[in-house]
Amino acid sequence: VETKLPKVGTTIFTVMSQLAMEHKAVNLGQGFPDFPVPDLLVEALDRAMRDGHNQYAPMTGIPALRNAIAHKTERVYGWRPNADTEVTVTSGATEAIFDAIHAVVHAGEEVIVLDPCYDCYEPAIELAGARAVHVPLDPVTFAPDWQRVRDAITPRTRMLMINSPHNPSGAMLSAADMQEVAAILHGTNIFLLSDEVYEHIVFDGARHESALRYPELRERAFIISSFGKTYHCTGWKVGYCIAPPALSAEFRKVHQYNVFCTFAPAQHAFAAMIERAPEHYEELGAFYQAKRDRFAAQLRETRLAPLPVPGGYFQLVDYSAVSDLDDLAFCRWLTTEHGVAAIPLSPFYESPPAGQRLARLCFAKNDATLDAALARLRTL
Amino acid sequence: VETKLPKVGTTIFTVMSQLAMEHKAVNLGQGFPDFPVPDLLVEALDRAMRDGHNQYAPMTGIPALRNAIAHKTERVYGWRPNADTEVTVTSGATEAIFDAIHAVVHAGEEVIVLDPCYDCYEPAIELAGARAVHVPLDPVTFAPDWQRVRDAITPRTRMLMINSPHNPSGAMLSAADMQEVAAILHGTNIFLLSDEVYEHIVFDGARHESALRYPELRERAFIISSFGKTYHCTGWKVGYCIAPPALSAEFRKVHQYNVFCTFAPAQHAFAAMIERAPEHYEELGAFYQAKRDRFAAQLRETRLAPLPVPGGYFQLVDYSAVSDLDDLAFCRWLTTEHGVAAIPLSPFYESPPAGQRLARLCFAKNDATLDAALARLRTL
Ligand SMILES: CSCCC(=O)C(=O)O
Ligand SMILES: CSCCC(=O)C(=O)O
Repeated sequence: VETKLPKVGTTIFTVMSQLAMEHKAVNLGQGFPDFPVPDLLVEALDRAMRDGHNQYAPMTGIPALRNAIAHKTERVYGWRPNADTEVTVTSGATEAIFDAIHAVVHAGEEVIVLDPCYDCYEPAIELAGARAVHVPLDPVTFAPDWQRVRDAITPRTRMLMINSPHNPSGAMLSAADMQEVAAILHGTNIFLLSDEVYEHIVFDGARHESALRYPELRERAFIISSFGKTYHCTGWKVGYCIAPPALSAEFRKVHQYNVFCTFAPAQHAFAAMIERAPEHYEELGAFYQAKRDRFAAQLRETRLAPLPVPGGYFQLVDYSAVSDLDDLAFCRWLTTEHGVAAIPLSPFYESPPAGQRLARLCFAKNDATLDAALARLRTL
Repeated sequence: VETKLPKVGTTIFTVMSQLAMEHKAVNLGQGFPDFPVPDLLVEALDRAMRDGHNQYAPMTGIPALRNAIAHKTERVYGWRPNADTEVTVTSGATEAIFDAIHAVVHAGEEVIVLDPCYDCYEPAIELAGARAVHVPLDPVTFAPDWQRVRDAITPRTRMLMINSPHNPSGAMLSAADMQEVAAILHGTNIFLLSDEVYEHIVFDGARHESALRYPELRERAFIISSFGKTYHCTGWKVGYCIAPPALSAEFRKVHQYNVFCTFAPAQHAFAAMIERAPEHYEELGAFYQAKRDRFAAQLRETRLAPLPVPGGYFQLVDYSAVSDLDDLAFCRWLTTEHGVAAIPLSPFYESPPAGQRLARLCFAKNDATLDAALARLRTL
């Protein structure tokens, strides 16, 4: 078989989760919570099944969920997308990212990504026959250098991908950043893909600068989120894409022939949850901020140095006081020898910054889990 | 937006389902059952959620489900695939078909499809930058003409797609057909994609000639099925692909970056269902045969002429005694004027046979639903 994805191996998340299992390590690697899904959601899914909502959902998603998403978008970001023509439900954000790329990026074109970036971006771009052009973020602050983005644009550039709050760093784009993006894209044929799956996990009173807030961005954007992070159910795989009608139409062509539609009972459950418990997503930042603060305070008692975390549920730590290993070797060593699984940053880069000694720890965990990890990290 | 899929519109299934709703027609169009999901399945999904199986499943599917699929394959087809390296769980058969094509079909290559064929094949081929080469089945028996398939092969041919039991016709491939396929593919670099989602819905004591039974086929094949048709839950969107390790490896690269993994609680539910209630799939043929026979007998009292149905849950009818309309116009008229939604065959063809006057009716319905449709069809 002549492979179409020569660079693709097993994702670092699967590699580290398997290693964690083999070594009975506390798994702070792959990003998923270890606390339960809200009861309301489980009950609503159960009811949907028993009420017989078990056949194909409409390809674009059930109207109740598209309306709930539109309503929530208005409530949170002050703008209401058209639920019929601008909102499409997908089988997770990963599918939405794949579909958006395949909808508008043609073979031979280029997509600009900001490194470090989530590992599904580049393979999706390559499968579309296009090329990922990697522009590094600042290695310390993870802020974009917009001049470097401008310099990376060519006549073949078809899309710019951004992600805020950012995985793996937790960095957030500012209003000034969003205005820069608008200025850069103005008058071009370049689409924006904004990956906002951590939209509700933001701290210290900061405002998530969703592309949904900016008319000049959303007119050319695929704005993608999912429910996995917001509702503690990463295994439920329901996400969505908000895009203007013409872009949604192309997006839906791909979605229609890729998965056609998404697990129907969960769509009913999320529709009920969003409408009946808006406090859940409103209070999510505070919920995770308490975890972040507790975890960082304890980390400061170890030889790992926690970096600031503006958003998301990952804590970066600088391990240079502990080890000279490169980050992949360090994370393997930490898992096998010290029983704590972490994620290295280098797999998120085309060329990792020389000498970067950072590992990512997921704090979407019960206090007991984090305490068990800390007990081990204190011995480093 | 320069479209990448100029030929794609809304699927005929969505079009007819919407028309059926607007006109309160009995919907025998889009293929989905109107009877309930087995209790065991609902209970098992419920339990999986409450037991906390709500985070990312392994990318390839949970081991219990992959093992259950391997076990069932052995039980039914006499050969056991390796659950670790040859079985991958997907978000429905549609995703599996999309992934298999994107895994091995390169831009500029060709994929042979047999017309009429399911409407997701060609868009997936086109998105991969390849071209669908359409070889017609016999317009009356829907049998393949293997000489025409041979004649369609060029140095660019990368894949042959087959589908048995066949949608929309219900025709089934014979053992002789499968040997022909093996002979045609022998010594070539052409992969086989075998779409077998109706595998358990076969009638009159016939044996489903799965590609899984033929070593010389399965060594080069992506064999795809799903649980939607078998367990009356088309909206649950869980399917799978069985392929040799090297092909599964390429398949998984696409799956990993397309949807990553599939709704976790349903995977637990299907694993339990397959292992604990094998009689469900064993008795499915008899269950649907009774529906087929009852429906066909009643149809013979109308001016629609039912064709033989060897497998699947669709009844083709010849409407030439009723109308001269082309099939799309006839199905619209039947829906809007007579309150019964059907599916025309022409959207399944590159070039529909001239003068074909066939419509597809789904009999995966309660007797009351079929009776309501029949009461209307008798007035034609
Ligand atoms: C799809 S597994 C990866 C989960 C995740 O988002 C992360 O850990 O970054
Ligand atoms: C994905 S909607 C179409 C359902 C189906 O398989 C059919 O009606 O042929």
